[in-house]
Amino acid sequence: MESAPTRVMVAVNESTMKDHPHPSISSKRAFEWTLEKMVRSNTSDFKILLLHVQVVDEDGFDEVDSVYASPEDFREMRESNKAKGLHLLEFFVKRCHEIGVGCEAWVKKGDPKEVICQEVIRVRPDLLVVGSRGLGRFQKVFVGTVGAFCVKHAECPVITIKRNADETPSDPADD
Amino acid sequence: MESAPTRVMVAVNESTMKDHPHPSISSKRAFEWTLEKMVRSNTSDFKILLLHVQVVDEDGFDEVDSVYASPEDFREMRESNKAKGLHLLEFFVKRCHEIGVGCEAWVKKGDPKEVICQEVIRVRPDLLVVGSRGLGRFQKVFVGTVGAFCVKHAECPVITIKRNADETPSDPADD
Repeated sequence: MESAPTRVMVAVNESTMKDHPHPSISSKRAFEWTLEKMVRSNTSDFKILLLHVQVVDEDGFDEVDSVYASPEDFREMRESNKAKGLHLLEFFVKRCHEIGVGCEAWVKKGDPKEVICQEVIRVRPDLLVVGSRGLGRFQKVFVGTVGAFCVKHAECPVITIKRNADETPSDPADD
Repeated sequence: MESAPTRVMVAVNESTMKDHPHPSISSKRAFEWTLEKMVRSNTSDFKILLLHVQVVDEDGFDEVDSVYASPEDFREMRESNKAKGLHLLEFFVKRCHEIGVGCEAWVKKGDPKEVICQEVIRVRPDLLVVGSRGLGRFQKVFVGTVGAFCVKHAECPVITIKRNADETPSDPADD
């Protein structure tokens, strides 16, 4: 196939659970779904764009605007070992590298739902994939959902992937 | 790849415009997007499930519950030439056949948004793709959107694909 690869943006975030380091269950699921159901064995026809939006009031973090495309790109980070958002990206970049699909990963600061929509305008992916906790209507009122906002406002096709039922933590608002 | 193909259900409907026979602009766009951006050259790893829901008060139509998987399956229909819903399916099945991706196509009667969600439960696709006219909030109030309903209620991941801006007819509620 001669045409440009399909560029799939996957929004990833950290787990809310202390005993569950790095990716949230739902963003890991969204990422794995993309590989299993879309990319499949056709790794050369896809590029995965991994965006992590750090909420502003988290601890100081200066790695905004760097782009990471291979596991080696994280070497310096490991020495300083202070930027936990990069450990998150490293997890996903490593996985892309293992299966041989091209990727780019970066961090932005701000309100995740708004920054994701801004980045869609800037980067123009073919598709945005967002994980979802699959909460009921009542639960959503209190915790909000990034996916629902993006479905409504992002200027590209959006797919939300729910966690599998057997992955739901004891408090379903956790992720 | 040894695993089962990714099963993508595409909901298709007829154009509302008299001079635009058969597929609506938005369902054709949703179908083409699926081929161009997901299936790409990897035809053996996907199966396209084409569902057309006929609104009940349209003219008499008995082809419910037949499944069509190749252009030959439409031969008998052409002789009787009365079932316009089948011409619609034939368009999409032909296209799948040309590019070599497996498909199944069938017709159901009822309220499209509800029947699509019922068929998702019955058929269990990996993904549902629905076209969208991309109307503004005010326009939606009057014409309703099948896609928005499916995003909320269908029990599988859903992606809505908007028409390209240059495909919008003079009355944007047309399709």
